[in-house]
Amino acid sequence: MKKLFAEFFGTYWLVFGGCGSALFAAGVPELGIGFAGVSLAFGLTVLTMAYAVGHISGGHFNPAVSFGLWAGGRFEAKELVPYIVSQCFGALAAAATLYLILNGQDGFLGIDNTKAGAFASNGYGAFSPTGYSMMAAFVTEFVLTLFFLLIILGATDKFANGKFAGIAIGLALTLIHLISIPITNTSVNPARSTSQAIFAGGEPLSQVWLFWLAPILGAIVAGIIYKNVLQKNED
Amino acid sequence: MKKLFAEFFGTYWLVFGGCGSALFAAGVPELGIGFAGVSLAFGLTVLTMAYAVGHISGGHFNPAVSFGLWAGGRFEAKELVPYIVSQCFGALAAAATLYLILNGQDGFLGIDNTKAGAFASNGYGAFSPTGYSMMAAFVTEFVLTLFFLLIILGATDKFANGKFAGIAIGLALTLIHLISIPITNTSVNPARSTSQAIFAGGEPLSQVWLFWLAPILGAIVAGIIYKNVLQKNED
Amino acid sequence: MKKLFAEFFGTYWLVFGGCGSALFAAGVPELGIGFAGVSLAFGLTVLTMAYAVGHISGGHFNPAVSFGLWAGGRFEAKELVPYIVSQCFGALAAAATLYLILNGQDGFLGIDNTKAGAFASNGYGAFSPTGYSMMAAFVTEFVLTLFFLLIILGATDKFANGKFAGIAIGLALTLIHLISIPITNTSVNPARSTSQAIFAGGEPLSQVWLFWLAPILGAIVAGIIYKNVLQKNED
Amino acid sequence: MKKLFAEFFGTYWLVFGGCGSALFAAGVPELGIGFAGVSLAFGLTVLTMAYAVGHISGGHFNPAVSFGLWAGGRFEAKELVPYIVSQCFGALAAAATLYLILNGQDGFLGIDNTKAGAFASNGYGAFSPTGYSMMAAFVTEFVLTLFFLLIILGATDKFANGKFAGIAIGLALTLIHLISIPITNTSVNPARSTSQAIFAGGEPLSQVWLFWLAPILGAIVAGIIYKNVLQKNED
Repeated sequence: MKKLFAEFFGTYWLVFGGCGSALFAAGVPELGIGFAGVSLAFGLTVLTMAYAVGHISGGHFNPAVSFGLWAGGRFEAKELVPYIVSQCFGALAAAATLYLILNGQDGFLGIDNTKAGAFASNGYGAFSPTGYSMMAAFVTEFVLTLFFLLIILGATDKFANGKFAGIAIGLALTLIHLISIPITNTSVNPARSTSQAIFAGGEPLSQVWLFWLAPILGAIVAGIIYKNVLQKNED
Repeated sequence: MKKLFAEFFGTYWLVFGGCGSALFAAGVPELGIGFAGVSLAFGLTVLTMAYAVGHISGGHFNPAVSFGLWAGGRFEAKELVPYIVSQCFGALAAAATLYLILNGQDGFLGIDNTKAGAFASNGYGAFSPTGYSMMAAFVTEFVLTLFFLLIILGATDKFANGKFAGIAIGLALTLIHLISIPITNTSVNPARSTSQAIFAGGEPLSQVWLFWLAPILGAIVAGIIYKNVLQKNED
Repeated sequence: MKKLFAEFFGTYWLVFGGCGSALFAAGVPELGIGFAGVSLAFGLTVLTMAYAVGHISGGHFNPAVSFGLWAGGRFEAKELVPYIVSQCFGALAAAATLYLILNGQDGFLGIDNTKAGAFASNGYGAFSPTGYSMMAAFVTEFVLTLFFLLIILGATDKFANGKFAGIAIGLALTLIHLISIPITNTSVNPARSTSQAIFAGGEPLSQVWLFWLAPILGAIVAGIIYKNVLQKNED
Repeated sequence: MKKLFAEFFGTYWLVFGGCGSALFAAGVPELGIGFAGVSLAFGLTVLTMAYAVGHISGGHFNPAVSFGLWAGGRFEAKELVPYIVSQCFGALAAAATLYLILNGQDGFLGIDNTKAGAFASNGYGAFSPTGYSMMAAFVTEFVLTLFFLLIILGATDKFANGKFAGIAIGLALTLIHLISIPITNTSVNPARSTSQAIFAGGEPLSQVWLFWLAPILGAIVAGIIYKNVLQKNED
C-alpha cells in the first residue's frame, strides 16, 4: 500500500511540476523559462522523487515504465494494474490542482482546446506544437520511450553504478523533452497525457490513444532488447 | 552554537544568491538569466550549502523546513525557535547586503514597492508577477512546500540513498521556482519572504503573513503524511 | 558482442538526442532551447548512457574517445576498429531516424546544404555558424577534444572518484558545446560529424575530414600528456 | 611537479571554457547562451577538472582558493607561490588560445578595450556591465569569494560527504556567476582576471588590482570563519 501512495505522490509531482511549469512559466514574455526550463522541470520531478520515494516503490511514476520493467523481467505482472491506477489518479489530482490555480489568474478564460498544447496536452498533426504528422509523432514517442527504458534498465542493473540511477533517469527525461516538445509536446508517459487530455477535452482527448500505444510499445521493445542483447549474464 | 552559525550562513547564502540573481541578473536585456536562471540560483544555494554545512546543522535554511522536520519526527521542538531566529537573521543580513550593492548601481532610485516583485519580494493579487489571486497563491505555496518536505523527508530517510539528498533537495527548490515564480515570485520559505518584505515595505510587507502560513501548514501536513503513509517501519 | 551493441545504442542516442534537439527545438521562436539547450542535450546523452551501458562497453560513443583511451593505455588496439564501426553505424541509424521525423513536419522542403549547420552538420569558413576560419576551427576542435580526453582519463583514473565519472564526462560535453557551437557547430566526435555530413552532402560532406583529423589528434595528444605528465605512479 | 601541471591544465580549462563561452557564444543573436550559459560553463570547468585532476593537486585553479585553503589550515604556505604561478601561466595560455581563435573570425577587428567586459575582462564603474560602483564591486567580489571558500572548506571537511565536493564546488561557481556577471563580469579568481586584463590592456588592466584584493581578502576571512566558528572539533 505504501508503494501505491508513493506512485500516487510521485506521478502527482511529475504532472504538477512538469505541466505546471509549462502552463505558468514557459511563455511569460522576456523572462519565461521556455522549452528548456520545462524540460528541466520534468526531469527534476523524477530526479527528486526517485531519491525521495524510490526506495519505497521503485519510482516508476509512468505506466510505460511499469510495462518496460515488466518486459525486462524486473517487475511482476500482478503489480501492473495497481501501479498504473495509482499513477493515473496521481496525474488526475495534479491536473485538477493545476486547473484550480489557473482559474485564479486574472483574465483566465478557460482552456482553448482548439490550439496545440492546450492545458499542456500532447498531440500530433494540427495539435503538434510545430506541425509534425501522426507518423512522425509515433516514431518520436516510440524511440524516446525505448531509450528511456534502456537507460532505466541499464542504470539500475546490478552490475551498474546504481546509486546514480536517479540522476541518470531524471536527466534522461529532461533530455527527452529538450528533443521533442516541439513535436508532440512530449509524452513518453500515458498517465501524464491522459490527465491533461481529460481536462482539455476535444481533439486533444481524441488523440490520447497514440500516447498510450507508442510509449508502451517502445518500453516493451526496450525490455526485450535489454534482456537479450545488453544484459550481462549472472555468472 | 555551530549549528546556529551554519543556519545563519546558509540562509544568508539562500537569500543573497537567490534574490540577488533575481535583482541583478534576471532582467538584463538580451543576456539576462530570466526565471530559469533565478530558479537554478535558488536551488544551487541549497545544494551547495547542504554539502558545505549539512553535516553541522542538517541544512534547513528555512523555517518551514524546520517545522516540517519537527512534524515528521526528525527535529526536536526545543530547537525550533533558535533555528528560526538564526535563519531570519541570516536572511536579513543578506537583504541588507543586497540593498547596499544595489545602491551602488548608477541610476538606482530606491525600491519601488508599488510593483509586483519589488526587491524580490513575494506577493499575490496585484503583487503576483502575473496576476494570480490570494487563493491561487495560497494553494500554490501550500502544495509546493508540502512536496518540498516530502522530498526532504524521503531523501534523508534511513532507507534512502542519503548521500544524494543535497542534490535532490537543492534541485527540488530549482523545480519549485521553475513552476511558481510567475505566481507568487516563489517563497516556500518564510525567512526569505520576510527579509525582502521588510526592505520593500508597503503592500509587500502587509502580504507577508501568507508566506508564513501557507508554507508552514504545507510542511506540517507533509510531515504527517510522510510519517503515516510513506515511511517504512523500522522492522 | 554486447559491447558493440552498447556502443551502437550509445552513439545512436548521442546523435539522436544532440542533433535532434538542434534540429527540432533550438530555433523555435521565443520558446526554443537555443545553443544552451542543445549543449545540455549533448551532455545528457553521454551522462545517461554512461550510467546505463558504461558497465558494458566503457561508454565511448565516439571514435576520438576510443583513440584517446588507446593512446592513454586504457584500451586495446585490436578493439579500435570494431568499436568505431559500431559507433558509425549507430550514428547513421540515428541520422536516418532524424531525417524520417523531419520529413513528417508540415512544410519540410529537404535539407538545404548551402547553409552552415545544415542537418546539424559541422563546418568551418562559410559553413561555420558565425564565420570562423578553417584554422580557428581546427584549433578549437583539437583543444576541446584534448581536454575532453584529459577529463575522461582523469575521472576514470584508479586514484580518482570514479563513480562520478559519468557526470563529469557528460557535463564536459555540455561545456564543450557551450563554448564552440558558434565556431564549428561542435564535433569532437567524428561519428557524429560523419552521419550528419552524409545526409547533408555537398560542402558539409567535403569538410568532414577536419572533424576526423582534429579530434583524433587532440585525443591522442591527451593520452600522451596524461600518461606522462599527470598520471600518478602505481607505487 | 604533477600537481603544478594539474593546476596549469585546470586553470587553462577554467579560462578557456568560461571566458571562451562568453566570447564566442553568449551574444549570438536569438540562439546565444546568455549569462546563464556562461555561468554554467564556468561552473562546469571546475566540476569537470575537480573530478579529473582533483586527486592530483586538490583542484584549486584559482589563487584566492589557494589563499583561503591556507587560511583554513588545509594548504601549506610554501606551496602558495608555485601553485599561483602555475595558475597564472595556465590562464595566460588559455587567453592566448582564445585570442588566436577570435582572430580567425571573419570581420574580427581586435579587442575594443573601451567597453565593459572587453575580452571577457572584469571591471567596475564604467567597466561594470550594468554600471556598478567600485565599492559595490568590491563588496560583491568579497562576499562571493568568502562564500565560495566556506563551501569549499565545508564540502571537503573530513566530516562532510566529500565525494560530492566537486559537484558542490563547481555548481557554487555557476551560482556565483548567475548573481554577479552584471556587476563585475564575475571574477572571484585573480588568475582569470589577470589573463583577460593583460590581453585587453587599457582601463580593464588598470582595474585588475581589485580582482586580486577583494577575492583574496574574502577567501582569507572565510578560512578564519570556517576554522573558528563552523569546524567541528576533532574529538
